[in-house]
Amino acid sequence: MAANYRRRKDIYTLPKADQDLLARLGYKQKLDEVDKAIEANAKFLSLIVQDPSIFGEGDEDSALEGDGSFSPGGEGSSHSHDHSHSHEGDHGHGHTHSHGSHGSRGTRSNKPSEFDMDKLRSTLKQFVRDWSEEGKEERENSYKPLKDALLEHFSSTPEAERRQLRVLVPGAGLGRLAYDVAKLGFTCQGNEFSHYMLLASHFILNRTDKIKEHIIYPYVHSFSNAPNKQSILQAIAIPDVLPSDLPPRSNFSLVAGDFEEVYGTESDPDEPQHGKWNAILTCFFIDTAKNIVNYLRIIHDILAPGGVWINLGPLLWHWENNQTSDPSIELDLEEVKQLAREMGFVISNERTIDATYTNNAQSMLGYTYNSRFWTATKMSSS
Amino acid sequence: MAANYRRRKDIYTLPKADQDLLARLGYKQKLDEVDKAIEANAKFLSLIVQDPSIFGEGDEDSALEGDGSFSPGGEGSSHSHDHSHSHEGDHGHGHTHSHGSHGSRGTRSNKPSEFDMDKLRSTLKQFVRDWSEEGKEERENSYKPLKDALLEHFSSTPEAERRQLRVLVPGAGLGRLAYDVAKLGFTCQGNEFSHYMLLASHFILNRTDKIKEHIIYPYVHSFSNAPNKQSILQAIAIPDVLPSDLPPRSNFSLVAGDFEEVYGTESDPDEPQHGKWNAILTCFFIDTAKNIVNYLRIIHDILAPGGVWINLGPLLWHWENNQTSDPSIELDLEEVKQLAREMGFVISNERTIDATYTNNAQSMLGYTYNSRFWTATKMSSS
Repeated sequence: MAANYRRRKDIYTLPKADQDLLARLGYKQKLDEVDKAIEANAKFLSLIVQDPSIFGEGDEDSALEGDGSFSPGGEGSSHSHDHSHSHEGDHGHGHTHSHGSHGSRGTRSNKPSEFDMDKLRSTLKQFVRDWSEEGKEERENSYKPLKDALLEHFSSTPEAERRQLRVLVPGAGLGRLAYDVAKLGFTCQGNEFSHYMLLASHFILNRTDKIKEHIIYPYVHSFSNAPNKQSILQAIAIPDVLPSDLPPRSNFSLVAGDFEEVYGTESDPDEPQHGKWNAILTCFFIDTAKNIVNYLRIIHDILAPGGVWINLGPLLWHWENNQTSDPSIELDLEEVKQLAREMGFVISNERTIDATYTNNAQSMLGYTYNSRFWTATKMSSS
Repeated sequence: MAANYRRRKDIYTLPKADQDLLARLGYKQKLDEVDKAIEANAKFLSLIVQDPSIFGEGDEDSALEGDGSFSPGGEGSSHSHDHSHSHEGDHGHGHTHSHGSHGSRGTRSNKPSEFDMDKLRSTLKQFVRDWSEEGKEERENSYKPLKDALLEHFSSTPEAERRQLRVLVPGAGLGRLAYDVAKLGFTCQGNEFSHYMLLASHFILNRTDKIKEHIIYPYVHSFSNAPNKQSILQAIAIPDVLPSDLPPRSNFSLVAGDFEEVYGTESDPDEPQHGKWNAILTCFFIDTAKNIVNYLRIIHDILAPGGVWINLGPLLWHWENNQTSDPSIELDLEEVKQLAREMGFVISNERTIDATYTNNAQSMLGYTYNSRFWTATKMSSS
């Protein structure tokens, strides 16, 4: 809204003749329409944040089948690596990985920072990716190979018995991949660190009653690379499916917290991790590591023998050149694969999949990740 | 170099077992090789800046045919819009359009800022785009349609008489498009604002004696999205052609300065602009405007009746969300075309060309601009 006010103000700095020309183009009218769309987004986002109970003692009136639990693990950690891959943000398309303490709680009455605003804009685009018809092509492209490889790996398990198989999705974002896996009948747990993603996924999973309940305008926040006015003002209806529509006795949960903290230690005797997971699906996740060695060690450790790690993503190391003196190890693809073998994985089914991430199909700027896909099986002997 | 030192230091923050694993992967050895490549880049860049005479009273011993003049217009202006489109910079791929006073002169003895470093990294990649065999495909894709449309527009002029036709290339970058146009026999003037581009283009055009004289390593500055070690350590030889290899009596010049200041006023009676240009080629340029109305007005004004403006590029408005309170008008494509018609242009030959900008073909992350191409003829009556 401030950006749009700035645009309106800028017009008046121009010579009168230029102002008249812009008026003839309908530029001011476009600004009015954008204002309305921004207001609609603000109203939608306020719905999301009006129920912060998930960070309290759980969420007992969840509409979601399954346990729907949000554990508060990881709260208080000082960094954010929500791998938002926001590519249409204000300064074009920076891969946002600013770091530092940016809690969404307790600061709501203050002026939101540019960081916060960027996260909100990313969240809107993430809704398109995970929960709209417009995002379907992008989802099919990334999620289907992961789900197919999962079904293939457990093809000898009858559908009725999939509930015995525990699947983990770290970096779950707005939860669609984890939901899809639960819908296939697996027991599925998503894990996510970002407050923005957690609040938003809670809202869509537990507070949505009907298909296309909400309309958002994810592309009004940048005027660059727009072929026309319609591309800026696109209205996206969410969700495309009913998130509560899961099979009876589904076991689907989302756990809040840092992946290394939640799964890298055996701190909770009630929830042992070592060797307890049958599959781990990582989608645009492993490059959120500061130390990829530790990520792969945890993934290997918590898998059951014969369990499978299925990966899709680029290697856009989120902590490269961080300003907070956090360590960052940035391996190339060959090194990552060699590391996986050293850990005790057998890699198969490897290929490159050109994938987009929160792509605006109508933009004049497109990003394609030449993502690498593989299935890595934990050797039974290890 | 500091980044690589940081990487080396980060290793020692890890547990011993992780360090040993990384050693087995050859990670430290890779860091050593990257150090050497960074040193080679530094040596090359120091060659470029050791001759700042171009900002003095001209360059009399230029090896370049034609006048090779650099006028110091625009010096002292407080912003930089070199449209570097640097997409592999440190923070991923921000379209660098930071603003503020960042002179390359007088600060050389101080610690270079992150802004300066980013510009240097962009300049290295720009060399690949304009003056290497590896950049040929990208050049053909963007420059050929522009040159073809120019030849088409003046197809009735015999080759021997092309020297009478004056072609302007604003945002000339490292000068390859302007050089190519001069090589076709046209009188061609490039215009560029960025000091980084000016120093580098001066070096390559006037200080290069043989093909493949220099080796640079443009991709050592980021470890993200690398498929293998070789992709990071790629050696690029420049130039791919001899820049002094122009036809006898060629008329080729580069003018330093802000486009609006140099061409938007009639301050120099020796160099009138109004109606004096037969063609203007804009390649990834028009979105550097703060006020696109003024850009198009100047382009229209300085063209001769029947003259042609040929454009290729996206609409990545460089001043959108600037931090310096500069005005910014961000039109969509339809509005830009309508504006051109209001100015008195007839648009033809319009199409979308998927173009890259300083793309690293080996990276796992690709950017494609769905660029718009058109030929706009100034109506003779206007």
